[in-house]
Amino acid sequence: MQNLIEQLIETLGPEAVTPSQEIDRVTSYWDSSPVNARALVRPKSTEQVSQVLKLCHQYRQPLVTMGGSTNCVAATKTTADEILLSTERLDQIEHIDTANGTATVQAGVILEKLQQACLSEDRIFPLDLGARGSCTIGGNAATNAGGINVLRYGMARNLILGMEVVLADGTVLSNMNQMLKNNSGYDLKQLFIGTEGSLGVITRLVVRIFPRPVSRNTALLALNRFDQVIALLGNAQQQLAGTLSAFEVMWGNYMGGVTAPGAHKPPFAETYPYSVILESEGTDIEADEQRFNTLLENCHESTLIADAIVPKSENDRLALWAIREQFEPVLKPGPVFLYDISLPITAMEHYLEALSEALQLQWPEHDFYVFGHVADGNLHLFIRPNQPGEENAQHQQSDALVYELLQRYNGAISAEHGIGSEKRDWLHCSRSDAEIALMRQLKATLDPDNILNPARVLA
Amino acid sequence: MQNLIEQLIETLGPEAVTPSQEIDRVTSYWDSSPVNARALVRPKSTEQVSQVLKLCHQYRQPLVTMGGSTNCVAATKTTADEILLSTERLDQIEHIDTANGTATVQAGVILEKLQQACLSEDRIFPLDLGARGSCTIGGNAATNAGGINVLRYGMARNLILGMEVVLADGTVLSNMNQMLKNNSGYDLKQLFIGTEGSLGVITRLVVRIFPRPVSRNTALLALNRFDQVIALLGNAQQQLAGTLSAFEVMWGNYMGGVTAPGAHKPPFAETYPYSVILESEGTDIEADEQRFNTLLENCHESTLIADAIVPKSENDRLALWAIREQFEPVLKPGPVFLYDISLPITAMEHYLEALSEALQLQWPEHDFYVFGHVADGNLHLFIRPNQPGEENAQHQQSDALVYELLQRYNGAISAEHGIGSEKRDWLHCSRSDAEIALMRQLKATLDPDNILNPARVLA
Repeated sequence: MQNLIEQLIETLGPEAVTPSQEIDRVTSYWDSSPVNARALVRPKSTEQVSQVLKLCHQYRQPLVTMGGSTNCVAATKTTADEILLSTERLDQIEHIDTANGTATVQAGVILEKLQQACLSEDRIFPLDLGARGSCTIGGNAATNAGGINVLRYGMARNLILGMEVVLADGTVLSNMNQMLKNNSGYDLKQLFIGTEGSLGVITRLVVRIFPRPVSRNTALLALNRFDQVIALLGNAQQQLAGTLSAFEVMWGNYMGGVTAPGAHKPPFAETYPYSVILESEGTDIEADEQRFNTLLENCHESTLIADAIVPKSENDRLALWAIREQFEPVLKPGPVFLYDISLPITAMEHYLEALSEALQLQWPEHDFYVFGHVADGNLHLFIRPNQPGEENAQHQQSDALVYELLQRYNGAISAEHGIGSEKRDWLHCSRSDAEIALMRQLKATLDPDNILNPARVLA
Repeated sequence: MQNLIEQLIETLGPEAVTPSQEIDRVTSYWDSSPVNARALVRPKSTEQVSQVLKLCHQYRQPLVTMGGSTNCVAATKTTADEILLSTERLDQIEHIDTANGTATVQAGVILEKLQQACLSEDRIFPLDLGARGSCTIGGNAATNAGGINVLRYGMARNLILGMEVVLADGTVLSNMNQMLKNNSGYDLKQLFIGTEGSLGVITRLVVRIFPRPVSRNTALLALNRFDQVIALLGNAQQQLAGTLSAFEVMWGNYMGGVTAPGAHKPPFAETYPYSVILESEGTDIEADEQRFNTLLENCHESTLIADAIVPKSENDRLALWAIREQFEPVLKPGPVFLYDISLPITAMEHYLEALSEALQLQWPEHDFYVFGHVADGNLHLFIRPNQPGEENAQHQQSDALVYELLQRYNGAISAEHGIGSEKRDWLHCSRSDAEIALMRQLKATLDPDNILNPARVLA
């Protein structure tokens, strides 16, 4: 097998291949254990990725593709017999085409770098999530990333027009389509979006970019009941339609946790059952502000909302968003188990009540934090047992409570984080035997030797 | 083989199976020849579709699925040895869920019927196209339909959340997901969207519905140069962002053709090189109108537009749209060859010039009509040779001119109509050998006996 590493060095050059003993990195944002892999390979072109795959195919060498290492599902934690392929040197923004509304990038481009490059052309790339400073466009595509602008612009899938992929045997599959409409045969890129690198290695992309909005209106609203949250969402979708860009809900338990002494400053004098960050982005500064304020006034008059804060400066606005995005205060002391689930909006309240009861029975002293992109059906849960016990066993127990209950409400065990290795054994909670069988058939068709991200997504 | 027909009658009942000699229908909207098929089968549930597929699987019986018969690519024209499966009795709107923003429907529901049912709940299903009165949601999904609202709401793919499909062997694959976000394993519905029934038979769907816009502003604008059309689009996207719902361009040749004596009334005193239907839909009657008018005034002051018509009534508005949608005046006398292509907006002008020159050389007396959803990169072309000759041979010559030239401009041979049997042999103009090989692999994996819509999409 050493022969493979030597051939990789010979083919790609020594700067692109780090043998096992010389790798000096941590596993991921969430896991500070050192990387354990046969080699770290850092190709800088589609052609080089193809060379890597051809060699791995020849040797039946398992290979794990890594973007920004920010995934939450242990997808890129390698074993000693796997090669880790990093896309970090595939970092070129090749072209920003304002007339056609597209950007052409290599897969390793950091999300925030593309966002900024677009802004300098008076455009936006609207995909946005907390990991923006580390995650890559290729990773966003491979995991069908969501984030805070899905409501208005859709998931990553919706923003991708063209793609270049290297298949398991090194074949380059290129379709750098620039058009919104292209029904010329099967849309093969859909096979690689959201399949977490298990069917091919994405190397280049064409993505959609949009005119830069000039107005932005934000408010933090306090509500007492979940049916009021649903009503507020309905009003906002109706009255701000086309400009509503964020509707982020924080449950009282989350708000209480992240605004405890020493953490974020509490925005309201009391902790309400629900706090909503409402944001609209538009192109008409005056009219958009008026429309936003009219919505708030109507909500206030009808006592739909109990309190409201409208930030007076960009710093105030960022402070509100920090409450939502910087949740480190509730992560300590550990262990805390993180979840990313989705379910119909109308089922959320009942599901959370049932889960809360189940947690109470399991761990009477537990902490339970809930927040999420409610308009997308997406909730994030943090669960801390607060009881002595073995961490892995507690994690399993927690998973069982969260996922098995979810089946009853037609929910999904992953909304935007994917499956990786962490959720792999729970996939049956969201997908039928027939579906899992077809996933396996696809995997066997595209990667018959099972060398691409093996044991991720599917067992 | 008669045994199969008998078994189908026994299983589904005589009302669901019409033997060959009793079928009394025309082939499609575009082809008035009588249907020629071994039998017409009209199942009324997923379970019945599964029974049909199990029997066809057992007998290796080819089967063609048909929605509203409005496709433009001869996709559902059967041969005497194929069974025609119509979804017309899968016609139930099962549920319109305003809180979750979804509608659950059977595949044979007529698009317009769903649009109207949504309106009665103060919601819209935004997919819209000329064939709305005949085409079905299942057909829309199978062909990834586009139409006039893609700019704002996306293609059919973007509107589909959940799906139930019957596979080639009769297996039912059901995932009636209601959530915007669901990354729980491979998103298998993508295999069936836009693959034109060649990988499975869609029987039920969950689709997205939206709040009903309350304002609508429309104008027909005249422009002299294509760079002005691009500039107008940029301005409209910037200034109407989020509300811009249609940007339909008609070239002078099209406008001249459809407003010739005896056809539509000419909207302007002269025929300009480009006419654009601009439409916005929003939720703020006053502000939206003001914004729309400001855009028009700015365009007028900067002489971007040469003339403008703002309809004064709904009848006036419909008359403007009729010019775009009712193109029968240019279809006679035949033969006229219809095309649906896409290419980058910046390449359109050069492509059309080159094509026009090539047509001039081939058929000096030809007519050439162009219109399309320019913002989506999508053009429709009508070509009439006006020269004696064999129709099929002329069609082949015309296809060669249109598609081979398109390769040079990175265009696609089908934007929204699909491939069917008509474009099958031109697929290589838009897709590489590696791509076509992977499509074949998928087809062989999901339909190993090649019984689903055989010889459509792929040879």
